[in-house]
Amino acid sequence: MSKLINQKDLEFLLYQVFQAEQLTELPHYSEHDRTTFDGILNTSGRIAEDYFAPHNAKADEHEPQFDGEKVSTIPEVKEAWQHFADSGLLCARHSYEDGGMQLPSLLHMAANAYFMSANPSTAGYPFLTSAAANVIHAFGSDEQKATFVPHMFSGRFSGTMALTEPDVGSSLGDLTTRALPADDGSYRIKGQKMYISGGDQDITENIVHLVLARIQGAPQGVKGISLFIVPKFHTNADGSLGARNDVQLAGLLHKMGYRGTTSTVLSFGEKDDCHGYLIGEAGKGLMYMFKMMNEARIGVGLGAAMIGYRGYLESLDYARNRPQGRSPVEKDPLSKPLNIVEHADVKRMLLAQKSYVEGSLALCLLAARLVDEQEAGQNADSGILLDLLTPVVKSFPSYYGPRANDLAIQVLGGAGYTREYPVEQCYRDNRLNPIHEGTHGIQSLDLLGRKLWQHNGKGQQLLMARVQATLKSAATKEQLADLTTSYQKHLNTLLQTTMTLGKALQSGQVSDALGNSALYLDMMGKMVIGWLWLEMADKAIDTFGASAAEDDQQFLAGKLQAARYFIRWELPEIEHQAKLLTGFDDTCTAMNPDWF
Amino acid sequence: MSKLINQKDLEFLLYQVFQAEQLTELPHYSEHDRTTFDGILNTSGRIAEDYFAPHNAKADEHEPQFDGEKVSTIPEVKEAWQHFADSGLLCARHSYEDGGMQLPSLLHMAANAYFMSANPSTAGYPFLTSAAANVIHAFGSDEQKATFVPHMFSGRFSGTMALTEPDVGSSLGDLTTRALPADDGSYRIKGQKMYISGGDQDITENIVHLVLARIQGAPQGVKGISLFIVPKFHTNADGSLGARNDVQLAGLLHKMGYRGTTSTVLSFGEKDDCHGYLIGEAGKGLMYMFKMMNEARIGVGLGAAMIGYRGYLESLDYARNRPQGRSPVEKDPLSKPLNIVEHADVKRMLLAQKSYVEGSLALCLLAARLVDEQEAGQNADSGILLDLLTPVVKSFPSYYGPRANDLAIQVLGGAGYTREYPVEQCYRDNRLNPIHEGTHGIQSLDLLGRKLWQHNGKGQQLLMARVQATLKSAATKEQLADLTTSYQKHLNTLLQTTMTLGKALQSGQVSDALGNSALYLDMMGKMVIGWLWLEMADKAIDTFGASAAEDDQQFLAGKLQAARYFIRWELPEIEHQAKLLTGFDDTCTAMNPDWF
Repeated sequence: MSKLINQKDLEFLLYQVFQAEQLTELPHYSEHDRTTFDGILNTSGRIAEDYFAPHNAKADEHEPQFDGEKVSTIPEVKEAWQHFADSGLLCARHSYEDGGMQLPSLLHMAANAYFMSANPSTAGYPFLTSAAANVIHAFGSDEQKATFVPHMFSGRFSGTMALTEPDVGSSLGDLTTRALPADDGSYRIKGQKMYISGGDQDITENIVHLVLARIQGAPQGVKGISLFIVPKFHTNADGSLGARNDVQLAGLLHKMGYRGTTSTVLSFGEKDDCHGYLIGEAGKGLMYMFKMMNEARIGVGLGAAMIGYRGYLESLDYARNRPQGRSPVEKDPLSKPLNIVEHADVKRMLLAQKSYVEGSLALCLLAARLVDEQEAGQNADSGILLDLLTPVVKSFPSYYGPRANDLAIQVLGGAGYTREYPVEQCYRDNRLNPIHEGTHGIQSLDLLGRKLWQHNGKGQQLLMARVQATLKSAATKEQLADLTTSYQKHLNTLLQTTMTLGKALQSGQVSDALGNSALYLDMMGKMVIGWLWLEMADKAIDTFGASAAEDDQQFLAGKLQAARYFIRWELPEIEHQAKLLTGFDDTCTAMNPDWF
Repeated sequence: MSKLINQKDLEFLLYQVFQAEQLTELPHYSEHDRTTFDGILNTSGRIAEDYFAPHNAKADEHEPQFDGEKVSTIPEVKEAWQHFADSGLLCARHSYEDGGMQLPSLLHMAANAYFMSANPSTAGYPFLTSAAANVIHAFGSDEQKATFVPHMFSGRFSGTMALTEPDVGSSLGDLTTRALPADDGSYRIKGQKMYISGGDQDITENIVHLVLARIQGAPQGVKGISLFIVPKFHTNADGSLGARNDVQLAGLLHKMGYRGTTSTVLSFGEKDDCHGYLIGEAGKGLMYMFKMMNEARIGVGLGAAMIGYRGYLESLDYARNRPQGRSPVEKDPLSKPLNIVEHADVKRMLLAQKSYVEGSLALCLLAARLVDEQEAGQNADSGILLDLLTPVVKSFPSYYGPRANDLAIQVLGGAGYTREYPVEQCYRDNRLNPIHEGTHGIQSLDLLGRKLWQHNGKGQQLLMARVQATLKSAATKEQLADLTTSYQKHLNTLLQTTMTLGKALQSGQVSDALGNSALYLDMMGKMVIGWLWLEMADKAIDTFGASAAEDDQQFLAGKLQAARYFIRWELPEIEHQAKLLTGFDDTCTAMNPDWF
């Protein structure tokens, strides 16, 4: 078995649970079939194994250095970038005429999964570049598109998203970077940005920064924010490069993990000569950026899921091959030690990991399926559902992925705590995910304060319709009877809680209703993942129930047991959370800062 | 406020909750009074601030190096060691005639808390040395004591505990290191040990390893294990040193955190000339080592609590000084941003940390108080209660301390993920604690499989008597009425669960009863910490209820709110855990390793 992903699991998710082949019925994807899909997956798996995985630990140990003039990264990063670019994956989702593969988002997400498992730091460079290119492609002028996009797709240029400022983290409305109109129609940008991933490196010829800034005289708050293209080197219409633009690396930030990706402080316009180019209309910067941000949030979810997945496979492999200890009823000291995978508590730790990471991967693939339905299938409902789920796709894997990595370390024991084994790096790398592209707290406010109620709550209805379809199918299967009943009970708790909080919001009790939003985000995550586990169990029975092959039966039994674990062990925690939420528990909100 | 510990909290715990001054009524401690106690605390705080805290990050960044011949550590470690040794803290608990201070364990634990907060890696060297010296002092021959102990107490020699072997982690009965009797009455040791903290360094003249090994012909299993003194340098009766003993550093292990403490692989007897000296009787090695181990387990609990505590204070300080964002009902973008400590979700994260770390510190101090009652007070009951609580003292802080550090990072956001702030190191350092000196899984089996039932369950009765006393006092206070009621309800759940599991064990359903032991360990931890929060709340009202001073009122309000948080938010999770346990849920135990 590959240590990057369980191939059988990925194929089951793609082709059985999310019915990838159905997508080829859409005109936009009609040139594809299972063969082309599998081809992409094989290519991705191979590049990830051969060029990304081998330097994952090395890039961590030898993080990028800045000598005051230039950043240097280990050469393997550039080599991996080149292979990624050459494969066409930087523009896989774009149309044939734009040089793309017209690959469904679902397959693209699956392909990305290999890279996130193999080496999330190095994967950061191409993923950010694709996202930035997509924004220019979607909202830029024809000239901007022609100047930048082909060179980003080919791998000559990379891209970044420059939102955060030193004094402004999550509160984007307060950002102060300024844009002064110049006579030539461009702008002069001035300000400092922080935590900019890939903000400098020695991998690509040029770097295209997408920068949020405030045009002189623009209104306060988010409505005054515009989006600018700021290239590291002045870029001619044919893509050839001129002199350096006035954007300087002020310094690298040194992170606990994800060390292979540079995290930078950038100074724009120290010499008052930083050229920026307005994308689309002034004042719509945040809207454009959120196109990229939503994609990035799903990408964070995928990264968290796959770093978790990698740790799970590593710890499983270790547990299967490490003899130690005996069963509690074995008293003979001469008896042969068991492999630790036989110990009840180790099984618990592996089962929990399995339930988190396979559930999280399923969630990310669902999000991608919804993107396809929305974009290529022109199904607005799928877009509404995707909007509702985005905070969950970002947050559930980001919270439970690191927990999976924590358990992976624990399975390995002392070995897991050393840098001689890969799980400690997973633990460090994954800790970034609940922070970047909107913290957990931000996601919880987005979900409970906004997403649930958009389009008159249509997203909720769409979600419930899908959940009910799964319940209906599962209810016909004896093996799933008790799980279906349990799930339904907890689902009712969630629905009641949502209603109570919705009423409070409607009647203006905003602070009360939102005060414990983190609990609600966790509840919703557990309900969605519990649903996906039921769905996976249901589809696994349909697919493998009649198979005589041993590996099919083992796969099926594993999916059923993980579904049981999640629904019996994890899901019931929402009952207590619901009590705190519906009781508007004020323990936290009433805490006075002076009392700490 | 010191960033190492909240002084007012420590004093409250020592003098109000655990009534340190009462200990001076015991003859052994009669020379002490509050002045001498405070003197020790001040000295410890000062040394920790001046010589331990300043190089905590540096020792992490510049971990010990091994050039194949010698280990080198940064010079600050040796300097800190020297100040620690000069202060007399290495033998603080020992009698005046042995050069000690006859300091109660309670005060010693409080003194150690400063060092664990300031720099847990550097503190590792003296703490291990004290523990090793204590074993020789307790069980060694007069000659062994004279040869080694004074030089360990003075700081010339350090000590280690060498249990683990490469193929034998938690399963000590399988260890294979051999001891061959030599003509001179000593032994020749042969074998390899792994994960030996402080197993080599350049800080002390000599290192005294306490090594578990099997004398030729000894029975299999734990009964065949003996304990040996193996010095790095041959040591003469007067403490002067001879040639190198045949114990070699095979290599350093590179850890995720706790990097300042060397973790070593040691080869004993590669040249068949490793001299070891039997401590006490053959075959009793594990019993002697467990004297040290129980001390070490409580020490691990304290370390986990204090690394958590440090992170809490850091994140609190950051939250109080970092303006960002507004309340959910503030719509004016020109309004002044709030300090983030005002946000509900940040308060939640701080309150959770406070409840974990102050609760954990209280638990460790309780353990120390019981040591005093047992040893100086000659109260056997206290020893029985301490035995019962040891797995909880080891485990609760080790599990919730890292969670506190996780929340500390989250409070700081992107800053927390960088090495420019100290909380990421706390997170990495603390991750060791659920592993070493007996993993979480081992502790849970120790508690549920053994400790609960020793002395016919007397430990449980003793614990309940103390809990009931707190409940009785709290019930008289109106502010605590609802918390007392809630606590009592959950306590009943624990008692029922314990009874059900006890019956199953008695009737031979060992695997069923122990299969979910990790859940039970967590339940017991929450009940004990919940009790200590009630106790703190009760004593805080007694102490500060009538005070007019603002800081007293704030301290009291904080203790009450943290007690509310823990009992309302965390404690109820045991209800679901109890259901799984009393239902003998077989989800994990029934998982077949082939299904993963």
